[in-house]
Amino acid sequence: MTEKLEVLRTSVLALAEGKKYTTLKDILVTMKAADIALLFDEEMPEEVVPLLFRLLPKDLAADTFVEMDADSQHTLIKGFSDRELKEVVDELYVDDAVDLIEEMPAMIVKRILQQADAEKRRMINGILKFPDDSAGSIMTTEFVDLLPQMTAQDAILNIRRSGIEKETINNCYITEKDRKLIGVVTIRALIMADPETTMQEIMEENVISVSTMEDQETVAHQFSKYNLIAMPVVDKEDRLVGIVTVDDVLDVMEEETTEDMEKMAAIVPTDSSKPYLKLSIFEIWKSRIPWLLLLMISATFTGMIITSFEGALAKYVILTAYIPMLMDTGGNSGSQASVTIIRGISLKEIDFGDILLVIWKEMRVALCCGLTLAAANFAKLMVLDRLTWMVALTICLTLLVTIFCAKFVGCTLPLIAYKLGFDPAVMASPFITTIVDAISLLVYFQFAVHLLGL
Amino acid sequence: MTEKLEVLRTSVLALAEGKKYTTLKDILVTMKAADIALLFDEEMPEEVVPLLFRLLPKDLAADTFVEMDADSQHTLIKGFSDRELKEVVDELYVDDAVDLIEEMPAMIVKRILQQADAEKRRMINGILKFPDDSAGSIMTTEFVDLLPQMTAQDAILNIRRSGIEKETINNCYITEKDRKLIGVVTIRALIMADPETTMQEIMEENVISVSTMEDQETVAHQFSKYNLIAMPVVDKEDRLVGIVTVDDVLDVMEEETTEDMEKMAAIVPTDSSKPYLKLSIFEIWKSRIPWLLLLMISATFTGMIITSFEGALAKYVILTAYIPMLMDTGGNSGSQASVTIIRGISLKEIDFGDILLVIWKEMRVALCCGLTLAAANFAKLMVLDRLTWMVALTICLTLLVTIFCAKFVGCTLPLIAYKLGFDPAVMASPFITTIVDAISLLVYFQFAVHLLGL
Repeated sequence: MTEKLEVLRTSVLALAEGKKYTTLKDILVTMKAADIALLFDEEMPEEVVPLLFRLLPKDLAADTFVEMDADSQHTLIKGFSDRELKEVVDELYVDDAVDLIEEMPAMIVKRILQQADAEKRRMINGILKFPDDSAGSIMTTEFVDLLPQMTAQDAILNIRRSGIEKETINNCYITEKDRKLIGVVTIRALIMADPETTMQEIMEENVISVSTMEDQETVAHQFSKYNLIAMPVVDKEDRLVGIVTVDDVLDVMEEETTEDMEKMAAIVPTDSSKPYLKLSIFEIWKSRIPWLLLLMISATFTGMIITSFEGALAKYVILTAYIPMLMDTGGNSGSQASVTIIRGISLKEIDFGDILLVIWKEMRVALCCGLTLAAANFAKLMVLDRLTWMVALTICLTLLVTIFCAKFVGCTLPLIAYKLGFDPAVMASPFITTIVDAISLLVYFQFAVHLLGL
Repeated sequence: MTEKLEVLRTSVLALAEGKKYTTLKDILVTMKAADIALLFDEEMPEEVVPLLFRLLPKDLAADTFVEMDADSQHTLIKGFSDRELKEVVDELYVDDAVDLIEEMPAMIVKRILQQADAEKRRMINGILKFPDDSAGSIMTTEFVDLLPQMTAQDAILNIRRSGIEKETINNCYITEKDRKLIGVVTIRALIMADPETTMQEIMEENVISVSTMEDQETVAHQFSKYNLIAMPVVDKEDRLVGIVTVDDVLDVMEEETTEDMEKMAAIVPTDSSKPYLKLSIFEIWKSRIPWLLLLMISATFTGMIITSFEGALAKYVILTAYIPMLMDTGGNSGSQASVTIIRGISLKEIDFGDILLVIWKEMRVALCCGLTLAAANFAKLMVLDRLTWMVALTICLTLLVTIFCAKFVGCTLPLIAYKLGFDPAVMASPFITTIVDAISLLVYFQFAVHLLGL
């Protein structure tokens, strides 16, 4: 919690205790919904939140409700009368209502659906049928659609009548009678147009749309590539069924980034709607233990390699001292390559077809990095550690070969995972490190056997 | 390059060779600027690009130009006559012109500024003075501003007159005579309003704005928190100087994510405007070698610890076999914690003030993870590796303590770095691994000395 929030929380609590409701209301109405929600989420006593919530004007109350986390929403709804619940549900946009329903337990969901009017219930159910993370699941069905023969004047009148219920009016979609999407008109074009022009004349026909089943990450990428603020979603017959707006895309991008970073750090992604401080110990444990266990067991191979060269190591104990340096440098080189490629894939800059180009590039980088590090290391081994020529050579050659292998493994595994339909992010540091550890030891002992005659 | 792009590229090249310009033009005008730019960037022969570019209608040409990468832009401008350059520059929005100027060599910049009209040149220079990554550097100065006493009707007329040159009309800003920002009116509110209402009556006074010097990452965070599509930028005296639009924020988010991931993988961030496949070997080497060198040298400590226990290791060579497993598990546990905290900080979910809460949470997670791993490992050591009780106990106790230390280091270092004003992302896997390596070895040998009497 930031200091500013802490200060605010203390004074709001004091005012609530002193029953200074008018003052409280005056403070709350100058705040943004997202900030009020933060305040409500931060360990406010359970009885104070409904009290404060009831002070908010209807639309601010609904906006605040949407921004609250699932736990606080749950607590609040439990205290709502049916009429209060209806008031909030009426104000919610359909996509926000769907998000809410997905987080609530069955009993509450039933109450919410009971309070929604028939039209809204139909729309909610329409969206609920799409799989998580699909374009359909993040779209809203409240958009402006116009007919091709409408004039600009009629269109504006139409928006004046119905626009208040739409999530955005910045893009209006032109559909034929069978709801087939045939064009888009921006509100700017509508305002600029001569009042008598028809939609057909000013619409942009070349519309970028997605299908309901498209992955939300791809949708986000399209927004960024084409600088969109809204995007129509169509079904298999090209009929317009909803739109995705850019505010939801910003959330998707944050969510996907968190997920990628978690995967890269060997964490099974956690429930993205819960901030870290609200996750239980068990939830965190559950997300961290699988990879730790798997990677620990994989390290058995590394142990087996060392065991099989036990005799040699006993003779040349000094070699052991350089094992961590070799393994870490290998691991770091490998993760540099893998993270670069993983990011390139997710920005659609790199495709599986580029694999040979990528390998060729990484091999040259490995040569440059390997030579620099081996040279620096050789100098250090000779001058500071005062090793013999042959031992220093063994270590530095191992370093060079390890870096080559690490960069190779690091750049190819994510591309192969991608080709096979897995998430390349899993092929990051921890996974690469385990493989590179084994490789570096094998190389090390081979050089030791041949150069030092162990 | 994707297959689809490859196919398109081949047919476009064939058409260009056959001088089928009308067909080419028909194909290009149905494409989106971002896609044409991709096509131009992909190893098109240098003489073909200007030829294709000249086939594009003026506005599509400018949009395409903005989407091209710096190298292709450079090549294209070199071939432009002054008139052609002027045509493109006239069509560019100010913020795009600034982006272009920042990437071009001095000679080209001079030509571009010569072709811009006086007003645009003034605006470009106004933005150029802001530091990289500041709100000022990503804003545009082409926005709609209205006076408080204007009626809705007047406002719409005003937009009809000047709107075509503005980057967006979706939000209109209300300023007083001294350019002080006092409110915002959405285009939706304007259209819905009674034509005679004044801006003063319908404007939202509680405007979220940023100062010109604010960090672009913070700006992006505000967009996502408050669901914005544009945000006003004000100077020290609260005067409106520009706006940031959501399309630029999407780019900032991608850029910042790439930068964070690079830092987490021990890479010095590369030029974000260049995709991986266009970076030179030297550029990649330069971004990867500093951390590799630094981390390699830090591994010296780990080596020194092993050396100082050389005698003990020679007696109990079997202990060496478990060093990689202990180091890797420690490293993985530490990076799980650090990446979780780094992400929490950048989503503003965690603040330095939460450090005790975070440590308390991580210690309990460490206990759960540590016990699970130690138990699994103990079973494996006794049953599969057939070690003695005492050796197995030494290894498992080390594992448990290492996980505690790793989680502690992993969760505190990012918060401390953040408090000190450094980027927490640097405190990720590679850095943590190096520290945890040394800790795990020290713990290992202490247990060995005391339990096994070495």
